[in-house]
Amino acid sequence: MDNYFLNRHTWRTFSDREVTDNLLQDMLEAASHAPTTGNMQLYSVVITRDVSQKKLLAPAHFSQPASLNANVILTFCADLNRFVKWCENREADPGFDNFQSLMAAFLDTTILAQQFVTIAEREGLGTCYLGTTTYNADKISEVLHLPRRVIPVISVAVGYPSGQYEETDRLEPAAFIHKEKYNDYTSDDINRIYKDKEQRQDSKRFVQENNKQSLAQVFTDVRYPRKNNEYFSSVFINFLKSQGFMLD
Amino acid sequence: MDNYFLNRHTWRTFSDREVTDNLLQDMLEAASHAPTTGNMQLYSVVITRDVSQKKLLAPAHFSQPASLNANVILTFCADLNRFVKWCENREADPGFDNFQSLMAAFLDTTILAQQFVTIAEREGLGTCYLGTTTYNADKISEVLHLPRRVIPVISVAVGYPSGQYEETDRLEPAAFIHKEKYNDYTSDDINRIYKDKEQRQDSKRFVQENNKQSLAQVFTDVRYPRKNNEYFSSVFINFLKSQGFMLD
Repeated sequence: MDNYFLNRHTWRTFSDREVTDNLLQDMLEAASHAPTTGNMQLYSVVITRDVSQKKLLAPAHFSQPASLNANVILTFCADLNRFVKWCENREADPGFDNFQSLMAAFLDTTILAQQFVTIAEREGLGTCYLGTTTYNADKISEVLHLPRRVIPVISVAVGYPSGQYEETDRLEPAAFIHKEKYNDYTSDDINRIYKDKEQRQDSKRFVQENNKQSLAQVFTDVRYPRKNNEYFSSVFINFLKSQGFMLD
Repeated sequence: MDNYFLNRHTWRTFSDREVTDNLLQDMLEAASHAPTTGNMQLYSVVITRDVSQKKLLAPAHFSQPASLNANVILTFCADLNRFVKWCENREADPGFDNFQSLMAAFLDTTILAQQFVTIAEREGLGTCYLGTTTYNADKISEVLHLPRRVIPVISVAVGYPSGQYEETDRLEPAAFIHKEKYNDYTSDDINRIYKDKEQRQDSKRFVQENNKQSLAQVFTDVRYPRKNNEYFSSVFINFLKSQGFMLD
């Protein structure tokens, strides 16, 4: 098997070297040959290159360094606007303001983004998903002038890599593979599956630095606390509704 | 750039040759090195290989041929069950029963599925996304014994290819790329962007066979009618709630 896949890693620091529009277009064209629901291609990609636009966008990504240091930020958007406009221009009645249509667009968009990341990394670029896009979709939408029926889903920082990367650990594949039926996890399973992750030096450091009893508490109390999750869920749901989607 | 990406295509017919569990595990392990939110890996994959299980599963995919002819069906599930169990076993209070947590799991799952598809195709396998998983998530969940907090998101039919594949057309990349700000589409833009698609022989055949005036009407009246979209949205939302997620 191609070694790239097992050995890839995220880069969070980048050199000043330009990632040209031509290269981006070629890579996005290749990525668009990934599967898409009914071949509808329910997505758009906004390229942020201007430093002034990056500075406007960065707060929506909590100003994480990659959002400012990357040569370009690509915002992958679920886009039902273009398809609906096409239908309306052809005397067709589009019924795409519902959750299933939104899910199809989310899937199309995520598949495109991941295929782009793979292509870009194989071209020697570094990429970093900014995990903040659905938190501040409303703010991103303002900066990028997204119209009704367009939802930012994923942002990817892209540049030529520089500095160091961190090795990432993963669960053993048996931890997430089930044969024929889902085998629910016993306490023993959980202990075995998460043991390596909990014993890593960086994990122990996170626990200590945050004054917690376990790595899991770092996730629940520091990184993804219930209150934040619920607040940003409510903001996102309101944004989806204001962009023209029904969620009930 | 690697030719694979521009030239890939979906296969819907497969030979009888076995795709072994070892090969699937190796490919899924490689795919798991794709990015994941906060390295939480909020997914599980259920492998359906037994003919009896495939027959139980197929109706949920409207018995499309690929769902029965493929050597294996992989159901990629958004899984917050494993992570929540880990938290609960470590005296951490998980607040993951909300829409943002579900979105993170949807993204993780879709990224894994697409990375798997790329790896599998490069290994000489054929793959076909079954676009029906979120329609009948409740039925799939029953067949696969999915517990609370696990949602089937994507199903991929996998086998060694056989027979013919269909070339798929894609929009020109300029149709979905925007620089700095979203440039909304004029009627002229829409006409230009969709012209090639509308003039394809297979498109004209779809219009004629379905007795429609335009290709867009095939999408809105035949393939994705409002009534179906809304019905399956409601079914899916109810399923998400019954699996323990809040959507408001």
